[in-house]
Amino acid sequence: MVVIMRPAASDSEVAGVVQRIEKFGMQAHLSRGKERTIIGLIGDEREIDFDSIAALPGVERAIPILKPYKYVSREVHPETATIAVGDVVIGRDLVFMAGPCSVEEEDTTLRIAEQCRRAGAQIFRAGAYKPRTSAWSFQGLREKGLQILAKVRQATGLPVVTEVVDTADIQIVGQYADMYQVGMRNMRNYALLGELGKTDKPVLLKRGDSAKLEEWLAAADYVARNGNDKIILCERGIRTFEDYTRNTLDLNAVGGAITESCLPIVVDPSHGTGRAELVAPMSRAAVAAGAHGLMLEVHDNPRLAWSDGKQSIVPAELERLIQDCRRIHELTR
Amino acid sequence: MVVIMRPAASDSEVAGVVQRIEKFGMQAHLSRGKERTIIGLIGDEREIDFDSIAALPGVERAIPILKPYKYVSREVHPETATIAVGDVVIGRDLVFMAGPCSVEEEDTTLRIAEQCRRAGAQIFRAGAYKPRTSAWSFQGLREKGLQILAKVRQATGLPVVTEVVDTADIQIVGQYADMYQVGMRNMRNYALLGELGKTDKPVLLKRGDSAKLEEWLAAADYVARNGNDKIILCERGIRTFEDYTRNTLDLNAVGGAITESCLPIVVDPSHGTGRAELVAPMSRAAVAAGAHGLMLEVHDNPRLAWSDGKQSIVPAELERLIQDCRRIHELTR
Amino acid sequence: MVVIMRPAASDSEVAGVVQRIEKFGMQAHLSRGKERTIIGLIGDEREIDFDSIAALPGVERAIPILKPYKYVSREVHPETATIAVGDVVIGRDLVFMAGPCSVEEEDTTLRIAEQCRRAGAQIFRAGAYKPRTSAWSFQGLREKGLQILAKVRQATGLPVVTEVVDTADIQIVGQYADMYQVGMRNMRNYALLGELGKTDKPVLLKRGDSAKLEEWLAAADYVARNGNDKIILCERGIRTFEDYTRNTLDLNAVGGAITESCLPIVVDPSHGTGRAELVAPMSRAAVAAGAHGLMLEVHDNPRLAWSDGKQSIVPAELERLIQDCRRIHELTR
Amino acid sequence: MVVIMRPAASDSEVAGVVQRIEKFGMQAHLSRGKERTIIGLIGDEREIDFDSIAALPGVERAIPILKPYKYVSREVHPETATIAVGDVVIGRDLVFMAGPCSVEEEDTTLRIAEQCRRAGAQIFRAGAYKPRTSAWSFQGLREKGLQILAKVRQATGLPVVTEVVDTADIQIVGQYADMYQVGMRNMRNYALLGELGKTDKPVLLKRGDSAKLEEWLAAADYVARNGNDKIILCERGIRTFEDYTRNTLDLNAVGGAITESCLPIVVDPSHGTGRAELVAPMSRAAVAAGAHGLMLEVHDNPRLAWSDGKQSIVPAELERLIQDCRRIHELTR
Repeated sequence: MVVIMRPAASDSEVAGVVQRIEKFGMQAHLSRGKERTIIGLIGDEREIDFDSIAALPGVERAIPILKPYKYVSREVHPETATIAVGDVVIGRDLVFMAGPCSVEEEDTTLRIAEQCRRAGAQIFRAGAYKPRTSAWSFQGLREKGLQILAKVRQATGLPVVTEVVDTADIQIVGQYADMYQVGMRNMRNYALLGELGKTDKPVLLKRGDSAKLEEWLAAADYVARNGNDKIILCERGIRTFEDYTRNTLDLNAVGGAITESCLPIVVDPSHGTGRAELVAPMSRAAVAAGAHGLMLEVHDNPRLAWSDGKQSIVPAELERLIQDCRRIHELTR
Repeated sequence: MVVIMRPAASDSEVAGVVQRIEKFGMQAHLSRGKERTIIGLIGDEREIDFDSIAALPGVERAIPILKPYKYVSREVHPETATIAVGDVVIGRDLVFMAGPCSVEEEDTTLRIAEQCRRAGAQIFRAGAYKPRTSAWSFQGLREKGLQILAKVRQATGLPVVTEVVDTADIQIVGQYADMYQVGMRNMRNYALLGELGKTDKPVLLKRGDSAKLEEWLAAADYVARNGNDKIILCERGIRTFEDYTRNTLDLNAVGGAITESCLPIVVDPSHGTGRAELVAPMSRAAVAAGAHGLMLEVHDNPRLAWSDGKQSIVPAELERLIQDCRRIHELTR
Repeated sequence: MVVIMRPAASDSEVAGVVQRIEKFGMQAHLSRGKERTIIGLIGDEREIDFDSIAALPGVERAIPILKPYKYVSREVHPETATIAVGDVVIGRDLVFMAGPCSVEEEDTTLRIAEQCRRAGAQIFRAGAYKPRTSAWSFQGLREKGLQILAKVRQATGLPVVTEVVDTADIQIVGQYADMYQVGMRNMRNYALLGELGKTDKPVLLKRGDSAKLEEWLAAADYVARNGNDKIILCERGIRTFEDYTRNTLDLNAVGGAITESCLPIVVDPSHGTGRAELVAPMSRAAVAAGAHGLMLEVHDNPRLAWSDGKQSIVPAELERLIQDCRRIHELTR
Repeated sequence: MVVIMRPAASDSEVAGVVQRIEKFGMQAHLSRGKERTIIGLIGDEREIDFDSIAALPGVERAIPILKPYKYVSREVHPETATIAVGDVVIGRDLVFMAGPCSVEEEDTTLRIAEQCRRAGAQIFRAGAYKPRTSAWSFQGLREKGLQILAKVRQATGLPVVTEVVDTADIQIVGQYADMYQVGMRNMRNYALLGELGKTDKPVLLKRGDSAKLEEWLAAADYVARNGNDKIILCERGIRTFEDYTRNTLDLNAVGGAITESCLPIVVDPSHGTGRAELVAPMSRAAVAAGAHGLMLEVHDNPRLAWSDGKQSIVPAELERLIQDCRRIHELTR
């Protein structure tokens, strides 16, 4: 932490800051200029309350230097993590996850899963627990949906990823899924993240739609600190003033996450755009930007999808998209 | 829902939309113009998936007319709800909730509570479960904190409000608190909201920092639909590009909530500004805009506060602020 | 400026930063910690390019300390400026500016102006040059509109403020107007601001809808640096994800501007909300937050207004609003 | 326009809306449902004031159907425009524009231009008129800078693009430049856009940092409507809450612009990220998303750059980037 004192700060105000820093068991370094004094804190500032220093008299501004995360930082882990989901390894080769937004009736779900597999997808995705903005919308098939997912895995051999929305559901979802998904609404549900940190299944952590990169990585630390370091980041767009698209897909965050963190990152252009016609170009763009994989909403009859039909692509589009992305990945690796 | 067809939409595409609407058991009204056809859906559009119509061929745009909430809408409940928290009634008179960000040691907490009571506060607030951005920051005293809150109520007679962050904690928090608080990070934790809807204690629902007004009201519907209609809204700022303040306090939302919903609304200018010197002017502004109360972070030694010291005011400021706000309230009621 | 070196920065990288600072004729202060070195720059950092130091090898982060403005800062001018517009003084008493969005036909404009005067408004506002999002919308009466404004002043005695959108129009607008208005679209049109700095008429500077507080004040410096320090700030809302209102009125910025700058600040709740029913509560809120005045769109028949009818209030509402605001102002001064 | 009446709207209110529509010379289509009436307006709604109908009594909401632009829409011009800048054609092949942020001293500028040319750049970019946030920062060499640009063209054969910031400078900039650049701060400077519409030189129109896609295209219409249809869009990032990067590069807008408009679109990942290490991946991503070209800040000694050194790449990086992008372009065309 760097503490910038006001030009008019008195000697006793400067001494007050130094004392507070030392009370926390850390060291203070003074730099007295003509106009103002600057104080550097040496030690792990994450363990003290930032405001307890920023609010001291005479302080103009206190600036954090350390990131609010440790475990998932590239500084600590220089190598990108590789994470196995069934037989699929994320963080090494390019991985495609695909499926409908919601788990639907068994035969529909199985049929779409088989189409996704043939198109080249390696992991099946579909929601059994659906957090929806309106309490009046379809909320998912819940346990019945999980059972259908198990049948998909059996029939297709594809591992499955599905969302978990409450600590009370972790156990049952874990019985059926190969990877937990934390949706954007729950990125800051630290109770949920902490409990997932006690499991041994991979966790796909979607970015909250108002989360800065460093807050997202700090959320990942809640999982990692409890012992589970199998975390995959998923960029799915942030909320901005632009309403042409459902969200603003922030591909800057792909490069940023790779720079700052050891975790693999995948991109969800379905939610990131909300428009089927933009899914293919933004998938290619995500791979060109360095993403380790993609998560895609696919339906063989989007207008009959139980949710999110407007952003679903059909299996034939998926196949072409996967081929294009693989070629771009070859070029840029 | 109003469905606007593309200029080039064929008759069979128009018929497709009409059929889909009728399949949902609703009625379609056609308006054929020279350039394009517009189709109105008559019925409760909240019960169908929006995209299942928006994604049909020939559709340019589908526009929802109904709000995504029912129970908490003023259309359904023309009178503003009044909600008792202990002896205090929110929604009728101006109510002040005050206290430190976190529950601290017993004597400190009791001392501050007594100072808040003398300054005119009617409800005590402090966090026992603290969701913090970094897994490395202080996370609250948890059950020990709840016990201290119970002592505060006994000693001061003030009802207490405190945050609940997980469905697993609802019971224990309910044993100690007079009102549950749902923090901004959990506004879209619908599992938590649904379970709180099964309790009979009031719920203070903070706005998510990326939530539109209608999404916030839709979140309240998750509580109300399960039987608990004792909900108080709390505006606490949204996330924008402006970083001079911690958040952008959106007082437009006070008037908006009063127009659209029957729920009372209070304002938290401590988080809404993040700067102690802005708390008093924004408190006055909130009351002038029509808020039913305020929630304030108060500490008798902000630089020693365990969290959020930079935005805490001292008891003397609280007293003056309450007097100013009461006079403005008198003028504008 | 404070320069934070990377933990692994070499001695020669540190020396490189020091040399660069000294090359600019400034002094460098070193603070060597165990983990990293921090370098403070002593001198006026505004005169050098920030990146020329931030981009040096070994630098982790460079943090500006000085604000990007000087002339309009409260540090330099501790007293709030008072600015005369005709007989009206802004920055001392509460000032109300009112009128239709656009200058309309002469009799309509005169009639509304007279109604505004009777309701208590002290300055008349209306646009002759209208920047509109679509090239296909009504763009204002231009010089004919300015002539109507001159007649309003003659008939009512009210000084007039109107927008100028191009350096080429400064002279002609100045012949008719008592105060120039710079709209939010032109807040960063520095050529226009610089030229207005060479006039001797007051300038009402609206905040850009994506401008941080410090960028807004930096824009004011473009006017002040050329000799014209008669600048009034006008908060009119920023662009956020919330679309219930036309903009998000940021009343935090009122207190912020008063803290950081010597300029008076008025608020425009008409554009800040875009909804007539929110104009009165947000006007009261703005005054409670400390604003020096208000700018309001008024029309005696909003549905016939040539533009912005949805956010216009009628003269009777204006009268009541002014009375309420004056009483709140009395309480909080 | 579609007008949705309130459920309680009276017959006379409905008739009022119909009359107003017909007064504008357009036709109204009524659709009476059980709960409410919906009215469609047939005709060019761009020519009337939206609020003059939205503000009528009984109206719940009025929804525009037509876009606020005509000339630059793909509906009107199905073919993507091809625009010649010197010998280079934008909108056909992939085009690279490169150079330093500011025009610097003659020898430096010439040297960098030559390096850019050798690396594969086809157009030279550098700013002579620099709009800077602070009035105290370097504002560009102005006419002297233009003269240096002319020498660059002579020496390298590269056409040059440079920013124009005021109507008063259009003539002189036009004497030297092959293409005008309108910066993001001036995207809504409609006076400037209108005057550029009267010239015959291509205009590179950067997106404003708070502009929605449709507002950006509407700004282009200001140029096109005055006769100059040689317009190239440039996505350069929007302002969001994320501060890890200087802006949030919105590649969704590339696909969106291609869908909605006939104009070619290039991307500026230098400003769109503000970080040199993200320029190459985001360049590749932009091309994969369908961009017609890139605009890049290049300097052979970024730490000595007069501005924006932190986001400048060196010529060797440019060369590699151009090769990678050309290969991706081959794959995805």
